[in-house]
Amino acid sequence: MKTELLYGIHPVLETLAAGRRRVYEVYLDKEKKSRRLTQIKSIADTRGVFNTNIGSGNFKALADTIGHQGAIAVVSPYPLETVQDILHTDRGKDPKNFVLMLDNIQDPQNLGAIIRTALCVGIDGVVVPKDRSASPTPAVSKASAGALEHIHLVRITNLVQTIKHCKSRGLWVMGLQQNATQSIYAADLSGPIAIVLGGEQKGMRRLVEKNCDFLVSIPQRGTLNSLNVSAAAAVAMYEAFRQRHRE
Amino acid sequence: MKTELLYGIHPVLETLAAGRRRVYEVYLDKEKKSRRLTQIKSIADTRGVFNTNIGSGNFKALADTIGHQGAIAVVSPYPLETVQDILHTDRGKDPKNFVLMLDNIQDPQNLGAIIRTALCVGIDGVVVPKDRSASPTPAVSKASAGALEHIHLVRITNLVQTIKHCKSRGLWVMGLQQNATQSIYAADLSGPIAIVLGGEQKGMRRLVEKNCDFLVSIPQRGTLNSLNVSAAAAVAMYEAFRQRHRE
Repeated sequence: MKTELLYGIHPVLETLAAGRRRVYEVYLDKEKKSRRLTQIKSIADTRGVFNTNIGSGNFKALADTIGHQGAIAVVSPYPLETVQDILHTDRGKDPKNFVLMLDNIQDPQNLGAIIRTALCVGIDGVVVPKDRSASPTPAVSKASAGALEHIHLVRITNLVQTIKHCKSRGLWVMGLQQNATQSIYAADLSGPIAIVLGGEQKGMRRLVEKNCDFLVSIPQRGTLNSLNVSAAAAVAMYEAFRQRHRE
Repeated sequence: MKTELLYGIHPVLETLAAGRRRVYEVYLDKEKKSRRLTQIKSIADTRGVFNTNIGSGNFKALADTIGHQGAIAVVSPYPLETVQDILHTDRGKDPKNFVLMLDNIQDPQNLGAIIRTALCVGIDGVVVPKDRSASPTPAVSKASAGALEHIHLVRITNLVQTIKHCKSRGLWVMGLQQNATQSIYAADLSGPIAIVLGGEQKGMRRLVEKNCDFLVSIPQRGTLNSLNVSAAAAVAMYEAFRQRHRE
Protein backbone atom coordinates (compact mmCIF):
# COMPACT_ATOMS: atom_id res chain seq x y z
CA MET A 1 0.00 0.00 0.00
CA LYS A 2 1.51 3.27 -1.12
CA THR A 3 1.11 6.14 1.30
CA GLU A 4 2.25 9.72 1.75
CA LEU A 5 2.83 11.72 4.89
CA LEU A 6 1.00 15.04 4.80
CA TYR A 7 2.21 17.55 7.38
CA GLY A 8 1.01 20.92 8.56
CA ILE A 9 -2.38 22.07 9.79
CA HIS A 10 -3.79 23.20 6.45
CA PRO A 11 -2.82 20.14 4.39
CA VAL A 12 -4.25 17.76 7.02
CA LEU A 13 -7.41 19.82 7.52
CA GLU A 14 -8.02 20.35 3.81
CA THR A 15 -7.41 16.73 2.82
CA LEU A 16 -10.04 15.72 5.37
CA ALA A 17 -12.38 18.43 4.05
CA ALA A 18 -11.82 17.53 0.40
CA GLY A 19 -12.39 13.81 0.96
CA ARG A 20 -10.41 12.79 -2.10
CA ARG A 21 -7.58 10.88 -0.46
CA ARG A 22 -7.98 7.94 1.89
CA VAL A 23 -6.82 9.12 5.30
CA TYR A 24 -5.42 6.16 7.23
CA GLU A 25 -4.11 7.78 10.37
CA VAL A 26 -3.87 11.22 11.91
CA TYR A 27 -1.23 12.15 14.49
CA LEU A 28 -1.56 15.25 16.61
CA ASP A 29 1.05 16.74 18.90
CA LYS A 30 -0.28 16.33 22.42
CA GLU A 31 1.79 19.25 23.65
CA LYS A 32 0.17 21.70 21.25
CA LYS A 33 -3.31 23.10 21.60
CA SER A 34 -5.16 25.18 19.03
CA ARG A 35 -8.63 25.61 17.62
CA ARG A 36 -7.61 24.07 14.34
CA LEU A 37 -5.90 21.04 15.86
CA THR A 38 -9.15 20.43 17.76
CA GLN A 39 -11.04 20.84 14.49
CA ILE A 40 -8.84 18.20 12.84
CA LYS A 41 -9.50 15.77 15.69
CA SER A 42 -13.22 16.38 15.52
CA ILE A 43 -13.43 15.82 11.73
CA ALA A 44 -11.27 12.69 12.03
CA ASP A 45 -13.56 11.36 14.78
CA THR A 46 -16.66 12.04 12.69
CA ARG A 47 -15.13 10.21 9.73
CA GLY A 48 -13.96 7.31 11.84
CA VAL A 49 -10.33 8.05 11.04
CA PHE A 50 -7.88 6.66 13.57
CA ASN A 51 -6.27 9.59 15.36
CA THR A 52 -3.96 9.83 18.29
CA ASN A 53 -2.01 12.32 20.33
CA ILE A 54 1.70 11.73 20.55
CA GLY A 55 4.55 13.58 22.25
CA SER A 56 6.66 16.20 20.52
CA GLY A 57 9.67 13.88 20.48
CA ASN A 58 7.93 11.04 18.65
CA PHE A 59 6.32 13.59 16.44
CA LYS A 60 9.60 14.99 15.30
CA ALA A 61 10.89 11.51 14.49
CA LEU A 62 7.75 10.78 12.48
CA ALA A 63 7.56 14.05 10.59
CA ASP A 64 11.26 14.52 9.81
CA THR A 65 10.57 18.13 8.92
CA ILE A 66 10.11 21.45 10.54
CA GLY A 67 6.79 23.04 9.81
CA HIS A 68 4.59 20.10 10.77
CA GLN A 69 2.69 22.40 13.15
CA GLY A 70 1.63 19.45 15.26
CA ALA A 71 -0.40 17.65 12.59
CA ILE A 72 0.44 14.70 10.36
CA ALA A 73 -1.77 12.44 8.27
CA VAL A 74 -0.91 9.15 6.60
CA VAL A 75 -2.82 9.29 3.34
CA SER A 76 -3.17 7.63 -0.05
CA PRO A 77 -1.15 9.14 -2.94
CA TYR A 78 -2.21 12.41 -4.52
CA PRO A 79 -5.40 11.93 -6.59
CA LEU A 80 -4.26 12.92 -10.08
CA GLU A 81 -6.87 13.60 -12.73
CA THR A 82 -6.83 13.37 -16.50
CA VAL A 83 -7.04 16.14 -19.08
CA GLN A 84 -10.52 14.81 -19.90
CA ASP A 85 -11.57 15.35 -16.30
CA ILE A 86 -10.56 18.99 -16.17
CA LEU A 87 -12.07 19.79 -19.56
CA HIS A 88 -15.51 18.81 -18.30
CA THR A 89 -17.37 22.06 -18.31
CA ASP A 90 -20.58 20.95 -16.68
CA ARG A 91 -19.43 20.95 -13.10
CA GLY A 92 -18.71 24.62 -12.45
CA LYS A 93 -20.58 27.87 -12.64
CA ASP A 94 -18.35 29.10 -15.44
CA PRO A 95 -19.32 27.25 -18.63
CA LYS A 96 -16.05 28.20 -20.34
CA ASN A 97 -12.90 26.24 -19.57
CA PHE A 98 -10.28 28.04 -17.50
CA VAL A 99 -7.07 26.03 -17.38
CA LEU A 100 -3.55 26.72 -16.13
CA MET A 101 -0.47 25.03 -17.63
CA LEU A 102 2.92 25.21 -15.97
CA ASP A 103 6.15 24.46 -17.78
CA ASN A 104 9.41 24.08 -15.82
CA ILE A 105 8.18 25.37 -12.45
CA GLN A 106 10.76 23.67 -10.24
CA ASP A 107 10.42 25.27 -6.83
CA PRO A 108 7.78 23.55 -4.64
CA GLN A 109 7.15 26.90 -2.89
CA ASN A 110 6.28 28.56 -6.19
CA LEU A 111 4.14 25.62 -7.31
CA GLY A 112 2.27 25.71 -3.99
CA ALA A 113 1.73 29.47 -4.12
CA ILE A 114 0.44 29.29 -7.70
CA ILE A 115 -1.94 26.43 -6.87
CA ARG A 116 -3.30 28.38 -3.90
CA THR A 117 -4.13 31.34 -6.14
CA ALA A 118 -5.49 29.04 -8.86
CA LEU A 119 -7.98 27.55 -6.40
CA CYS A 120 -9.07 31.01 -5.21
CA VAL A 121 -9.63 32.28 -8.75
CA GLY A 122 -11.60 29.20 -9.80
CA ILE A 123 -9.26 27.45 -12.25
CA ASP A 124 -10.79 24.20 -13.63
CA GLY A 125 -7.48 22.39 -13.56
CA VAL A 126 -3.70 22.72 -13.47
CA VAL A 127 -1.52 20.87 -15.97
CA VAL A 128 2.05 20.00 -14.94
CA PRO A 129 4.55 18.02 -17.04
CA LYS A 130 6.14 14.97 -15.44
CA ASP A 131 9.70 16.01 -16.19
CA ARG A 132 11.66 19.07 -15.10
CA SER A 133 8.76 20.28 -12.95
CA ALA A 134 7.94 20.06 -9.27
CA SER A 135 5.39 17.32 -8.55
CA PRO A 136 2.42 17.47 -6.14
CA THR A 137 4.30 16.41 -3.00
CA PRO A 138 3.36 17.03 0.64
CA ALA A 139 5.75 20.02 0.56
CA VAL A 140 3.66 21.54 -2.23
CA SER A 141 0.48 20.86 -0.27
CA LYS A 142 2.02 22.73 2.65
CA ALA A 143 3.16 25.64 0.46
CA SER A 144 -0.34 25.84 -1.04
CA ALA A 145 -1.96 26.08 2.43
CA GLY A 146 -3.82 22.87 1.57
CA ALA A 147 -5.19 24.17 -1.75
CA LEU A 148 -3.49 21.22 -3.48
CA GLU A 149 -6.01 18.93 -1.73
CA HIS A 150 -8.88 20.64 -3.59
CA ILE A 151 -7.40 21.65 -6.96
CA HIS A 152 -7.74 19.39 -9.99
CA LEU A 153 -4.24 18.55 -11.14
CA VAL A 154 -3.00 16.60 -14.16
CA ARG A 155 0.51 15.35 -14.79
CA ILE A 156 1.25 14.78 -18.45
CA THR A 157 4.21 13.50 -20.45
CA ASN A 158 3.96 15.84 -23.41
CA LEU A 159 2.77 19.39 -22.85
CA VAL A 160 2.70 20.19 -26.57
CA GLN A 161 0.27 17.31 -27.12
CA THR A 162 -1.94 18.59 -24.31
CA ILE A 163 -1.89 22.10 -25.78
CA LYS A 164 -2.95 20.69 -29.15
CA HIS A 165 -5.70 18.69 -27.49
CA CYS A 166 -6.99 21.77 -25.65
CA LYS A 167 -7.00 23.74 -28.91
CA SER A 168 -9.04 21.00 -30.55
CA ARG A 169 -11.54 21.39 -27.73
CA GLY A 170 -11.93 25.07 -28.46
CA LEU A 171 -9.62 26.62 -25.87
CA TRP A 172 -7.37 29.56 -26.69
CA VAL A 173 -3.87 28.95 -25.43
CA MET A 174 -2.16 32.08 -24.10
CA GLY A 175 1.51 32.00 -23.15
CA LEU A 176 2.92 34.50 -20.65
CA GLN A 177 6.27 35.65 -21.96
CA GLN A 178 8.18 38.57 -20.52
CA ASN A 179 9.40 39.75 -23.93
CA ALA A 180 6.08 39.52 -25.73
CA THR A 181 5.10 42.84 -27.29
CA GLN A 182 1.37 42.44 -26.68
CA SER A 183 0.23 43.45 -23.19
CA ILE A 184 -2.04 41.05 -21.34
CA TYR A 185 -4.43 43.99 -20.94
CA ALA A 186 -4.88 44.20 -24.72
CA ALA A 187 -5.77 40.49 -25.01
CA ASP A 188 -9.21 38.91 -24.90
CA LEU A 189 -9.27 36.34 -22.11
CA SER A 190 -13.02 36.09 -21.79
CA GLY A 191 -13.51 32.83 -23.69
CA PRO A 192 -12.39 29.26 -23.01
CA ILE A 193 -8.73 29.65 -22.19
CA ALA A 194 -5.53 27.94 -21.09
CA ILE A 195 -2.86 30.17 -19.56
CA VAL A 196 0.70 28.84 -19.96
CA LEU A 197 3.42 29.93 -17.54
CA GLY A 198 7.13 29.17 -17.78
CA GLY A 199 9.50 28.37 -14.93
CA GLU A 200 11.67 30.49 -12.67
CA GLN A 201 14.90 30.26 -14.64
CA LYS A 202 14.29 29.44 -18.24
CA GLY A 203 10.66 30.29 -18.84
CA MET A 204 8.73 27.89 -21.04
CA ARG A 205 10.34 25.60 -23.57
CA ARG A 206 10.64 26.85 -27.14
CA LEU A 207 8.27 24.27 -28.61
CA VAL A 208 5.67 24.98 -25.93
CA GLU A 209 5.88 28.69 -26.69
CA LYS A 210 5.60 28.02 -30.41
CA ASN A 211 2.37 26.10 -29.90
CA CYS A 212 0.60 28.87 -27.99
CA ASP A 213 -2.08 30.77 -29.92
CA PHE A 214 -0.64 34.05 -28.70
CA LEU A 215 1.92 35.44 -26.27
CA VAL A 216 1.42 38.31 -23.87
CA SER A 217 3.49 40.08 -21.24
CA ILE A 218 2.64 41.81 -17.99
CA PRO A 219 3.79 45.44 -18.28
CA GLN A 220 6.62 46.31 -15.91
CA ARG A 221 8.15 49.56 -14.76
CA GLY A 222 11.37 50.20 -12.99
CA THR A 223 14.82 48.84 -13.40
CA LEU A 224 14.35 45.34 -12.11
CA ASN A 225 11.86 43.86 -14.57
CA SER A 226 11.56 40.61 -12.72
CA LEU A 227 8.08 39.87 -11.51
CA ASN A 228 8.19 36.68 -9.46
CA VAL A 229 6.50 33.76 -11.23
CA SER A 230 3.80 33.34 -8.57
CA ALA A 231 3.02 37.08 -8.63
CA ALA A 232 2.84 36.96 -12.43
CA ALA A 233 0.54 33.93 -12.19
CA ALA A 234 -1.77 35.80 -9.79
CA VAL A 235 -1.93 38.87 -12.02
CA ALA A 236 -2.60 36.82 -15.17
CA MET A 237 -5.24 34.53 -13.67
CA TYR A 238 -7.10 37.43 -12.05
CA GLU A 239 -7.03 39.48 -15.26
CA ALA A 240 -8.73 36.52 -16.94
CA PHE A 241 -11.18 36.32 -14.04
CA ARG A 242 -11.99 40.02 -14.37
CA GLN A 243 -12.69 39.71 -18.07
CA ARG A 244 -14.78 36.59 -17.63
CA HIS A 245 -17.03 38.10 -14.96
CA ARG A 246 -17.38 41.61 -16.23
CA GLU A 247 -20.92 42.92 -16.48
CA MET B 1 29.62 53.74 12.03
CA LYS B 2 26.46 51.71 11.65
CA THR B 3 26.55 49.08 8.94
CA GLU B 4 24.44 46.23 7.62
CA LEU B 5 25.47 43.01 5.93
CA LEU B 6 23.62 42.49 2.68
CA TYR B 7 23.80 38.93 1.38
CA GLY B 8 22.76 37.23 -1.83
CA ILE B 9 23.53 38.05 -5.45
CA HIS B 10 20.52 40.28 -6.14
CA PRO B 11 20.75 42.44 -3.01
CA VAL B 12 24.46 43.07 -3.56
CA LEU B 13 24.08 43.70 -7.29
CA GLU B 14 21.02 45.93 -6.90
CA THR B 15 22.45 48.01 -4.07
CA LEU B 16 25.46 48.73 -6.28
CA ALA B 17 23.13 49.53 -9.19
CA ALA B 18 20.84 51.77 -7.12
CA GLY B 19 23.70 53.75 -5.61
CA ARG B 20 21.69 54.81 -2.56
CA ARG B 21 23.68 53.07 0.17
CA ARG B 22 27.36 53.51 0.80
CA VAL B 23 29.04 50.21 -0.03
CA TYR B 24 32.12 49.79 2.12
CA GLU B 25 33.26 46.30 1.22
CA VAL B 26 32.22 43.45 -1.03
CA TYR B 27 33.16 39.84 -0.37
CA LEU B 28 32.86 37.19 -3.06
CA ASP B 29 33.23 33.45 -2.63
CA LYS B 30 36.38 32.48 -4.51
CA GLU B 31 35.12 28.92 -4.98
CA LYS B 32 32.03 30.06 -6.87
CA LYS B 33 31.97 31.30 -10.42
CA SER B 34 29.03 32.86 -12.21
CA ARG B 35 28.28 35.63 -14.66
CA ARG B 36 26.59 37.68 -11.98
CA LEU B 37 29.36 37.33 -9.44
CA THR B 38 31.72 38.59 -12.13
CA GLN B 39 29.32 41.44 -12.79
CA ILE B 40 29.37 42.39 -9.10
CA LYS B 41 33.16 42.44 -9.09
CA SER B 42 33.27 44.57 -12.21
CA ILE B 43 30.77 47.16 -10.88
CA ALA B 44 32.60 47.28 -7.54
CA ASP B 45 35.91 47.83 -9.36
CA THR B 46 34.43 50.64 -11.46
CA ARG B 47 33.08 52.33 -8.35
CA GLY B 48 36.31 51.91 -6.45
CA VAL B 49 34.64 49.70 -3.86
CA PHE B 50 37.02 47.40 -2.00
CA ASN B 51 36.26 43.84 -3.01
CA THR B 52 37.96 40.58 -2.32
CA ASN B 53 37.60 36.86 -2.87
CA ILE B 54 37.53 34.70 0.21
CA GLY B 55 37.18 30.96 0.76
CA SER B 56 33.86 29.26 1.43
CA GLY B 57 34.81 28.59 5.04
CA ASN B 58 35.49 32.23 5.92
CA PHE B 59 32.48 33.18 3.92
CA LYS B 60 30.18 31.04 5.96
CA ALA B 61 31.55 32.49 9.19
CA LEU B 62 31.02 36.01 7.86
CA ALA B 63 27.54 35.51 6.45
CA ASP B 64 26.07 33.39 9.21
CA THR B 65 23.21 32.47 6.91
CA ILE B 66 22.42 30.09 4.15
CA GLY B 67 21.41 31.75 0.95
CA HIS B 68 24.36 34.13 0.66
CA GLN B 69 25.03 32.76 -2.83
CA GLY B 70 28.67 33.76 -2.58
CA ALA B 71 28.12 37.52 -2.30
CA ILE B 72 28.14 39.82 0.73
CA ALA B 73 28.33 43.60 0.98
CA VAL B 74 29.01 45.72 4.04
CA VAL B 75 26.76 48.73 3.51
CA SER B 76 25.28 51.77 5.25
CA PRO B 77 21.82 51.35 6.81
CA TYR B 78 18.72 51.22 4.63
CA PRO B 79 17.99 54.66 3.12
CA LEU B 80 14.55 55.43 4.50
CA GLU B 81 12.52 58.22 2.96
CA THR B 82 9.79 60.49 4.28
CA VAL B 83 6.13 60.64 3.33
CA GLN B 84 6.91 64.02 1.72
CA ASP B 85 9.49 62.32 -0.52
CA ILE B 86 7.13 59.69 -1.86
CA LEU B 87 4.31 62.17 -2.44
CA HIS B 88 6.44 64.13 -4.89
CA THR B 89 4.71 63.59 -8.17
CA ASP B 90 7.19 65.23 -10.46
CA ARG B 91 9.71 62.46 -10.70
CA GLY B 92 7.76 59.71 -12.47
CA LYS B 93 5.88 59.30 -15.69
CA ASP B 94 2.61 58.88 -13.85
CA PRO B 95 1.52 62.27 -12.52
CA LYS B 96 -0.91 60.71 -10.04
CA ASN B 97 0.38 59.30 -6.76
CA PHE B 98 0.39 55.54 -6.44
CA VAL B 99 1.22 54.50 -2.90
CA LEU B 100 1.16 51.20 -1.00
CA MET B 101 0.56 51.03 2.77
CA LEU B 102 1.16 47.83 4.73
CA ASP B 103 -0.28 47.23 8.18
CA ASN B 104 0.90 44.26 10.25
CA ILE B 105 2.85 42.43 7.55
CA GLN B 106 5.16 40.42 9.78
CA ASP B 107 6.78 37.84 7.56
CA PRO B 108 9.99 39.14 5.87
CA GLN B 109 9.30 36.79 2.95
CA ASN B 110 5.91 38.36 2.34
CA LEU B 111 7.24 41.89 2.74
CA GLY B 112 10.04 41.13 0.27
CA ALA B 113 7.65 39.56 -2.27
CA ILE B 114 5.26 42.53 -2.04
CA ILE B 115 8.10 45.05 -2.48
CA ARG B 116 9.35 43.17 -5.53
CA THR B 117 5.92 43.41 -7.17
CA ALA B 118 5.52 47.05 -6.04
CA LEU B 119 8.73 48.00 -7.83
CA CYS B 120 7.65 46.18 -11.01
CA VAL B 121 4.25 47.89 -11.08
CA GLY B 122 5.73 51.35 -10.49
CA ILE B 123 4.58 52.20 -6.95
CA ASP B 124 5.85 55.64 -5.83
CA GLY B 125 6.47 54.47 -2.29
CA VAL B 126 5.73 51.87 0.35
CA VAL B 127 4.62 52.90 3.85
CA VAL B 128 5.35 50.51 6.74
CA PRO B 129 4.59 51.18 10.42
CA LYS B 130 7.46 50.88 12.88
CA ASP B 131 5.67 48.53 15.22
CA ARG B 132 4.23 45.07 14.62
CA SER B 133 5.57 45.01 11.07
CA ALA B 134 8.62 43.52 9.41
CA SER B 135 11.32 46.15 8.84
CA PRO B 136 13.55 46.57 5.76
CA THR B 137 16.29 44.14 6.81
CA PRO B 138 18.82 42.34 4.60
CA ALA B 139 16.47 39.31 4.73
CA VAL B 140 13.76 41.43 3.14
CA SER B 141 16.20 42.67 0.51
CA LYS B 142 16.98 39.03 -0.29
CA ALA B 143 13.30 38.05 -0.42
CA SER B 144 12.62 41.01 -2.73
CA ALA B 145 15.36 39.91 -5.16
CA GLY B 146 17.04 43.24 -4.46
CA ALA B 147 13.92 45.34 -5.22
CA LEU B 148 14.19 46.82 -1.71
CA GLU B 149 17.38 48.59 -2.85
CA HIS B 150 15.37 50.57 -5.44
CA ILE B 151 11.94 51.04 -3.86
CA HIS B 152 11.11 54.18 -1.87
CA LEU B 153 10.18 53.06 1.62
CA VAL B 154 8.90 55.03 4.59
CA ARG B 155 8.63 53.84 8.19
CA ILE B 156 6.11 55.78 10.21
CA THR B 157 4.89 55.72 13.80
CA ASN B 158 1.22 56.36 13.20
CA LEU B 159 -0.39 54.91 10.08
CA VAL B 160 -3.70 56.67 10.71
CA GLN B 161 -1.92 60.04 10.69
CA THR B 162 -0.22 59.15 7.41
CA ILE B 163 -3.55 58.12 5.91
CA LYS B 164 -5.04 61.44 6.94
CA HIS B 165 -2.07 63.29 5.49
CA CYS B 166 -2.40 61.45 2.18
CA LYS B 167 -6.10 62.25 2.05
CA SER B 168 -5.30 65.93 2.58
CA ARG B 169 -2.99 65.67 -0.41
CA GLY B 170 -5.81 64.42 -2.59
CA LEU B 171 -5.18 60.65 -2.54
CA TRP B 172 -8.02 58.17 -2.26
CA VAL B 173 -7.26 55.56 0.36
CA MET B 174 -8.51 52.09 -0.55
CA GLY B 175 -8.35 49.26 1.99
CA LEU B 176 -8.24 45.64 0.86
CA GLN B 177 -10.50 43.68 3.14
CA GLN B 178 -11.58 40.10 2.47
CA ASN B 179 -15.12 40.66 3.78
CA ALA B 180 -15.79 43.92 1.95
CA THR B 181 -18.90 43.68 -0.22
CA GLN B 182 -17.58 45.88 -3.00
CA SER B 183 -15.37 44.08 -5.51
CA ILE B 184 -12.07 45.72 -6.45
CA TYR B 185 -13.24 45.45 -10.05
CA ALA B 186 -16.15 47.78 -9.35
CA ALA B 187 -13.89 50.46 -7.83
CA ASP B 188 -12.25 53.39 -9.57
CA LEU B 189 -8.50 53.18 -9.00
CA SER B 190 -7.48 55.49 -11.82
CA GLY B 191 -6.79 58.61 -9.73
CA PRO B 192 -4.20 59.37 -7.05
CA ILE B 193 -4.44 56.38 -4.73
CA ALA B 194 -3.05 54.65 -1.68
CA ILE B 195 -3.74 50.92 -1.39
CA VAL B 196 -3.80 49.61 2.19
CA LEU B 197 -3.10 45.93 2.88
CA GLY B 198 -3.43 44.14 6.21
CA GLY B 199 -1.15 41.45 7.58
CA GLU B 200 -1.15 37.66 7.31
CA GLN B 201 -3.03 36.87 10.50
CA LYS B 202 -5.14 39.75 11.65
CA GLY B 203 -5.52 41.94 8.59
CA MET B 204 -5.36 45.66 9.16
CA ARG B 205 -6.12 47.31 12.49
CA ARG B 206 -9.66 48.52 13.09
CA LEU B 207 -8.75 52.18 13.23
CA VAL B 208 -6.73 51.93 10.02
CA GLU B 209 -9.66 50.27 8.29
CA LYS B 210 -12.03 52.94 9.61
CA ASN B 211 -9.90 55.68 8.11
CA CYS B 212 -9.89 54.25 4.59
CA ASP B 213 -12.12 56.06 2.08
CA PHE B 214 -13.50 52.73 0.91
CA LEU B 215 -12.94 49.00 1.29
CA VAL B 216 -12.85 46.42 -1.47
CA SER B 217 -12.30 42.68 -1.71
CA ILE B 218 -10.78 40.44 -4.37
CA PRO B 219 -13.49 37.99 -5.48
CA GLN B 220 -12.69 34.39 -4.55
CA ARG B 221 -14.12 31.06 -5.63
CA GLY B 222 -13.72 27.69 -4.09
CA THR B 223 -13.77 26.42 -0.58
CA LEU B 224 -10.52 27.85 0.68
CA ASN B 225 -11.01 31.61 0.40
CA SER B 226 -7.51 32.44 1.47
CA LEU B 227 -5.56 34.32 -1.12
CA ASN B 228 -2.01 34.76 0.16
CA VAL B 229 -1.23 38.38 1.09
CA SER B 230 1.50 38.75 -1.53
CA ALA B 231 -0.76 37.32 -4.26
CA ALA B 232 -3.55 39.69 -3.15
CA ALA B 233 -1.08 42.59 -3.24
CA ALA B 234 -0.04 41.69 -6.80
CA VAL B 235 -3.66 41.45 -8.00
CA ALA B 236 -4.65 44.76 -6.35
CA MET B 237 -1.63 46.76 -7.51
CA TYR B 238 -1.91 45.48 -11.07
CA GLU B 239 -5.64 46.20 -11.21
CA ALA B 240 -4.79 49.80 -10.29
CA PHE B 241 -2.05 49.77 -12.93
CA ARG B 242 -4.50 48.53 -15.55
CA GLN B 243 -7.00 51.25 -14.78
CA ARG B 244 -4.36 53.95 -14.71
CA HIS B 245 -2.91 53.04 -18.10
CA ARG B 246 -6.01 52.14 -20.01
CA GLU B 247 -6.48 53.81 -23.37
